[in-house]
Amino acid sequence: MERLLRVTLVVIALLMMALPAVAGAGDSAAAPGHAAALTFFWIAVILIAAKLSSLVEKIGQPSVLGELVIGVLMGNAVLVGIPFFEPLKQDAVIAFLSELGVVILLFQIGLESNIEKMKAVGLKAFAVAVVGVVVPFVLGTYLVGPWLLPGLAFHAYLFIGAVLTATSVGITARVFQDLKKLQTPEAQIVLGAAVIDDVLGLIILAVVSAIVTVGSVSIGLIGWLIAKAILFLVGSILVGQLLAAQLGKWLAKVQTGMGMKFTLAICFCLVLAFLAQQIGLAPIVGAFAAGLVLDPVHFGYFKDPKVVSDVKAAMEGCAPDVKQKVEKAIEPHAYSHVEDLIEPVAFLLVPIFFVMTGMSVRLETLFDVPILLLALGITAAAFLGKIVSGLVAGNVNKSIVGFGMIPRGEVGLIFAMMGKSLRVISDSVFAALIIMVILSTLITPPVLTYLLKRQDRKSRPSA
Amino acid sequence: MERLLRVTLVVIALLMMALPAVAGAGDSAAAPGHAAALTFFWIAVILIAAKLSSLVEKIGQPSVLGELVIGVLMGNAVLVGIPFFEPLKQDAVIAFLSELGVVILLFQIGLESNIEKMKAVGLKAFAVAVVGVVVPFVLGTYLVGPWLLPGLAFHAYLFIGAVLTATSVGITARVFQDLKKLQTPEAQIVLGAAVIDDVLGLIILAVVSAIVTVGSVSIGLIGWLIAKAILFLVGSILVGQLLAAQLGKWLAKVQTGMGMKFTLAICFCLVLAFLAQQIGLAPIVGAFAAGLVLDPVHFGYFKDPKVVSDVKAAMEGCAPDVKQKVEKAIEPHAYSHVEDLIEPVAFLLVPIFFVMTGMSVRLETLFDVPILLLALGITAAAFLGKIVSGLVAGNVNKSIVGFGMIPRGEVGLIFAMMGKSLRVISDSVFAALIIMVILSTLITPPVLTYLLKRQDRKSRPSA
Repeated sequence: MERLLRVTLVVIALLMMALPAVAGAGDSAAAPGHAAALTFFWIAVILIAAKLSSLVEKIGQPSVLGELVIGVLMGNAVLVGIPFFEPLKQDAVIAFLSELGVVILLFQIGLESNIEKMKAVGLKAFAVAVVGVVVPFVLGTYLVGPWLLPGLAFHAYLFIGAVLTATSVGITARVFQDLKKLQTPEAQIVLGAAVIDDVLGLIILAVVSAIVTVGSVSIGLIGWLIAKAILFLVGSILVGQLLAAQLGKWLAKVQTGMGMKFTLAICFCLVLAFLAQQIGLAPIVGAFAAGLVLDPVHFGYFKDPKVVSDVKAAMEGCAPDVKQKVEKAIEPHAYSHVEDLIEPVAFLLVPIFFVMTGMSVRLETLFDVPILLLALGITAAAFLGKIVSGLVAGNVNKSIVGFGMIPRGEVGLIFAMMGKSLRVISDSVFAALIIMVILSTLITPPVLTYLLKRQDRKSRPSA
Repeated sequence: MERLLRVTLVVIALLMMALPAVAGAGDSAAAPGHAAALTFFWIAVILIAAKLSSLVEKIGQPSVLGELVIGVLMGNAVLVGIPFFEPLKQDAVIAFLSELGVVILLFQIGLESNIEKMKAVGLKAFAVAVVGVVVPFVLGTYLVGPWLLPGLAFHAYLFIGAVLTATSVGITARVFQDLKKLQTPEAQIVLGAAVIDDVLGLIILAVVSAIVTVGSVSIGLIGWLIAKAILFLVGSILVGQLLAAQLGKWLAKVQTGMGMKFTLAICFCLVLAFLAQQIGLAPIVGAFAAGLVLDPVHFGYFKDPKVVSDVKAAMEGCAPDVKQKVEKAIEPHAYSHVEDLIEPVAFLLVPIFFVMTGMSVRLETLFDVPILLLALGITAAAFLGKIVSGLVAGNVNKSIVGFGMIPRGEVGLIFAMMGKSLRVISDSVFAALIIMVILSTLITPPVLTYLLKRQDRKSRPSA
């Protein structure tokens, strides 16, 4: 607790230094670089809040949960009369940095994932994705919709079903990452299924929009959408593997510094994220594909070549076999992967995404009892539909896969907003859908953490 | 050359992949995350262009020169009918990232600088700053102005003089960094003088604006400005040293990971940059101060604690003295500084600043002969005034200090724009001042490189 107190005091001291300046910020609006400097301040506030919140790790929770919760607190502080954080919600630069943050996160996850392992679980992931799209869609459109909201147009039920299909991979990926479980088959299945789910979601969105606006949908359009998405994924992985291998060989030959490796890697990620978005997929799908194909061997580098020569010099006159053993022991440490260079960028940007995701939660929507009840019904369908998808995951921990698929996140929000702007769903249904997204986002991290730790205990019963 | 060809081919391949998408980007403006994804693409374009341009290193030039030149080419491609890069100029997010980039650069430079060395050259830096402000101001206001532009109001000459006083530290700092000369007394004097120059510039800007708008200026205002600036610099260095030492001790005690160290360091930089801007200084001055005070000992971390234990295990049964020697050889390599974590962030952001600085150069201003001649006169005064300041730098290479002070950059631009908006200077004088800023920015890197290399040759005549 003393530690917590110290951190808090330091933060308060920092904020005290800055607060009068923020309060008076309006006065000097004409000063050069004003907008940028204010954003510097907000980035610092978000990062410090995120680090403070990572104290949840002390109670065994992944730090992503802390980041989400502190975001919820910051975003709703205005409800208890603290409007301090409100400007953050309108800051376009922060919104961009948050999107860049989740792109960097999925790139990192892709780098840490193994493409061979992904291929091995490919069919299972496909099955999980399909079940995880079909079941929630059917539940939403034909059961929960008509049952909880009798008398609405079929289009409204269609949209509720569509919102339930989305999977947001960011939250789950962070939980797996925080708990160092990315290499497990469960994590690989969820990651693969989430990517496939994004493609399916793209198709559903197009079909549902066409039905609502035009009244029908052509098989040609659906075919074209599917072809585009498959072309992108297969193409970027095949072309990417070739290109990355070529680039890697070239890098190995010219002996460039880590600056070149970092730049090529990050540009690869950004270009694929951009291309994914251009064909209608989420940018994070492109970033993940980029991470998957980057050649782990060729994008490595000697982080510190001098260590080997220094140690050799120190061992002058030593027995040759000891020499060899020591050199062998050092080598893996002297050699490093481009992941290590991406990590600091992730330190800077990833917390912005999760704190801002938390900030977008509007707690006041929970205060309306009829809407809340409706939301709980929809949420139940949302959970059930995805948990069921875990059943087809084969010989792995099915609950981990099922719960890993639960978070809806931004894709669900986009569906809901589209339904609202097409006037297919009412404001109260919209609010209920938002609550469903919130609950799916906030409940998943602790549940997944519990399941992963239970699995650990089971596999080591003697511990 | 074959290497260059390969890089070019890879870049063309990447662009080919993206180009049709950019061309069709207007169609899918409604797609989610569209604006962000387009900015991802632009960041990739800037970073690849910057890395391509770093080929100037092969001809012994610092890579910052390459970044500036490729920026100039991109920014003026529209003159030869290629409007491809024009949207970049309006991208608010890119503008922010560029400002963040120069803040990160000056933080890095501050981290690499030694506060004791800075104190040792403090008086010399002060002398250089004062001469480097007074001489250009007098030259501009009383000589070049009245001589080249007879018959203008005194206020106009005053603004020309004021524009000539600014020093932009970014360019020079990058040249010293690229050539690994940051630890030389010349670099320390220039860095110190540039910070002091920013304070003097703040005062001059306030005084000149007051004279032009109100007609007079109160001693009280000047006193308050000086007091604020000194309070900030001395205060942030004193409080910062205390705070950084406290934080450092705490970090050493709680054994946090590098994530916490990185976050605290970068937040420290961002908050000081913000505070500097709030009192009217450039944010980079705050970032530099933050880098200066961060405790290099306590913000270090073991990047790879396992290397030591692995090597110990490999040396099992070895003579104790050899063991000790080897462990001693490894230790400095296993231990790392927070600088290493800032570096990848700098890889991502710093090139954006220099490419965008290059892009802001408008080559068409050089086509008007009378304006060009006027510009050359003003530029001569600008160069002379700063070169003279090197003469008071004491027992160091005076030309390196003098030329290091030459770049005007954004501070000069702000002065010029204020003069234009107050209608004190005409459009053609404004254009001439812009050309002066351009020339001071583009000529400095090669000249400084030449001087630094000549110094190297002199100090090692036998090489």
